[in-house]
Amino acid sequence: MDHSKPDFSDTSLWFSDENRTQIQVIDQRHLPFKFEVFGIGSVEDAFFAIREMVVRGAPLIGVTAAFGMYFALKAAGRNNDRSLPAAAEYLNSSRPTAVNLFMATRRMLGVYDRIKKWEENLEILWAEAVKIRQEETDACLKIGQHGLPLIEEIFRKNPGQAVQILTHCNAGRLACIKYGTATAPVYLAHEKGIPVHVWVDETRPRNQGARLTAYELGVAGIPHTVIPDNTGGHLMQHGMVDLVLVGSDCTTRNGDVANKIGTYLKALAAHDNQIPFYAALPSSSFNWNMSDGLRDIPIEARSAEEVAYAEGWTGKSISRVRLVPKGSRTANYGFDVTPARLVTGLITDRGICPASREGIEALFPERNILACKKY
Amino acid sequence: MDHSKPDFSDTSLWFSDENRTQIQVIDQRHLPFKFEVFGIGSVEDAFFAIREMVVRGAPLIGVTAAFGMYFALKAAGRNNDRSLPAAAEYLNSSRPTAVNLFMATRRMLGVYDRIKKWEENLEILWAEAVKIRQEETDACLKIGQHGLPLIEEIFRKNPGQAVQILTHCNAGRLACIKYGTATAPVYLAHEKGIPVHVWVDETRPRNQGARLTAYELGVAGIPHTVIPDNTGGHLMQHGMVDLVLVGSDCTTRNGDVANKIGTYLKALAAHDNQIPFYAALPSSSFNWNMSDGLRDIPIEARSAEEVAYAEGWTGKSISRVRLVPKGSRTANYGFDVTPARLVTGLITDRGICPASREGIEALFPERNILACKKY
Repeated sequence: MDHSKPDFSDTSLWFSDENRTQIQVIDQRHLPFKFEVFGIGSVEDAFFAIREMVVRGAPLIGVTAAFGMYFALKAAGRNNDRSLPAAAEYLNSSRPTAVNLFMATRRMLGVYDRIKKWEENLEILWAEAVKIRQEETDACLKIGQHGLPLIEEIFRKNPGQAVQILTHCNAGRLACIKYGTATAPVYLAHEKGIPVHVWVDETRPRNQGARLTAYELGVAGIPHTVIPDNTGGHLMQHGMVDLVLVGSDCTTRNGDVANKIGTYLKALAAHDNQIPFYAALPSSSFNWNMSDGLRDIPIEARSAEEVAYAEGWTGKSISRVRLVPKGSRTANYGFDVTPARLVTGLITDRGICPASREGIEALFPERNILACKKY
Repeated sequence: MDHSKPDFSDTSLWFSDENRTQIQVIDQRHLPFKFEVFGIGSVEDAFFAIREMVVRGAPLIGVTAAFGMYFALKAAGRNNDRSLPAAAEYLNSSRPTAVNLFMATRRMLGVYDRIKKWEENLEILWAEAVKIRQEETDACLKIGQHGLPLIEEIFRKNPGQAVQILTHCNAGRLACIKYGTATAPVYLAHEKGIPVHVWVDETRPRNQGARLTAYELGVAGIPHTVIPDNTGGHLMQHGMVDLVLVGSDCTTRNGDVANKIGTYLKALAAHDNQIPFYAALPSSSFNWNMSDGLRDIPIEARSAEEVAYAEGWTGKSISRVRLVPKGSRTANYGFDVTPARLVTGLITDRGICPASREGIEALFPERNILACKKY
């Protein structure tokens, strides 16, 4: 595979193994209105890309940071042993809540070997960043493979009709490296020739659905329709949705799912209309220290400005318009928690499991505290 | 009361009884960014105001059309008997789905007396339009009076805290003449000194919440916070909502409620968190020929453009920005149906009743078909 080819249908982060002066990412700030490639050739570039949301999505942030660590060591030269921990701290400060970011920088620090030569360490760090990228890709592919039968089964029951899937926010390849999480089964179904149609929640206030999910589905040639976040319930009442697939930013050991604000409302509607509702997530997004999501998961309060304005394309540039009167307050909660009872199942890279303590521990037996204590 | 005073805290349509050359309305196309008064002095003005949504909201449309009929007769002069039916047809075509519009023009035709002199009929039509306006005001006031005890009761239980009310879309005085429907209990509570705070759903795609409800609450000095339509469920999960109050565009005899798209999702969340969910509506919005709302109520499909764009204030003018990629389809359903089982009660101008056939017929015994047949 030629990683230097800026072919978005392939990946959201690419590089040339021969020429390691830069990696390339899509500048997601301008999507879907402009496709621009952003080059990252220094730790400062990586910091900027993460903080300014040139890249977003936990897995993609992690991989970007890993390459940032490589560039930090490269710039430090032979005689600067202290440079790498400082670079990790610097990168970690770019978006303080992204768990994959910390994991990536810690891993890069872990493989650095001060006994070895600078050149050797450079080689080690590059290989590790490439490996992290590959692991993220593999995890998404596995999520897709495990989720695909859900779509195939619906299609078998109504072979003449496109499978109608509703998704919220962007848990797609733009947030990851390839495939995405919630979108992975959709991409694989499409590749297999199963007709699918995706209802894309626009996902106010930041409109990741309207801007990013719609964009990447469009690039992949997958039929889709963008809808206001208000619309999903109506569609489900009228049999226009077969399956709801969302991502998860954090999943508790009981199966409660924190995802983009509004997910809970769609889960309620799916439950009320007996429509399967699945969260797709890599194993790494479980928080094994949390059980009750509503009680334990902290919800990020974001800038009120995001709600007061809408950002979009004027015809000439990306600009924003004010939506609310002067003097009206706005509130902006980033996520909500969908209780496990509303979740039909979790699609992970290990397989599908019920959203319950028992279901999750059956798939992740090493996390079963009682069992571990017993033996 | 001086109707010529453009004091919006009073009304959304006013006139001078001495000088009957014009009535005044607020030009709602520019709210909340510009407050402009629009004068209506002819049937053509009335048609334009309704069609171009200078005025919107079923009751306000009806009253505007009633005055339009008066101006039609006035312009026709003494010897034009055919002018009034033509004017009714003309006005009816301005927004073909607004039931109050047809009711108003029919009523104006009904009071016209061809035996009487033109001057007398002019007097009759003016009086009838004023009367329709007054009746709409009275109905809203009664809805407010019947709904007020719900807020008072919550306040009694937690006297130190503002009562937290969530509303969707605009069922406020801007849609009516005064008070509004869903907002009427809120205005009366505020007048009585009960502290209230309203969570205002922005209500994509047209943002009637962010633009109109926030505006009118702001003018009235009522604390409020605009939120994305995704947010209500999270607030309810965390005890931040005491009461949900919405309007209703159409209510079946079984108590199913059609209201702005997204209402159903909020009703589900209210139900899931044991929060009272009330629809406030004038008796006239019942459709006695319908029982199953999901089956019977036709849902208006609106322009896809409204979803593809967001309209707001650039700092200089009202403009719109595109939200979705070129080539992505959008869908725009105007309303959804909230099944009666999710509705705690209906607040009508006759009182509050359960959202059930029995409950409704107890309040409207003249509509009880079986009872009528029996006796």
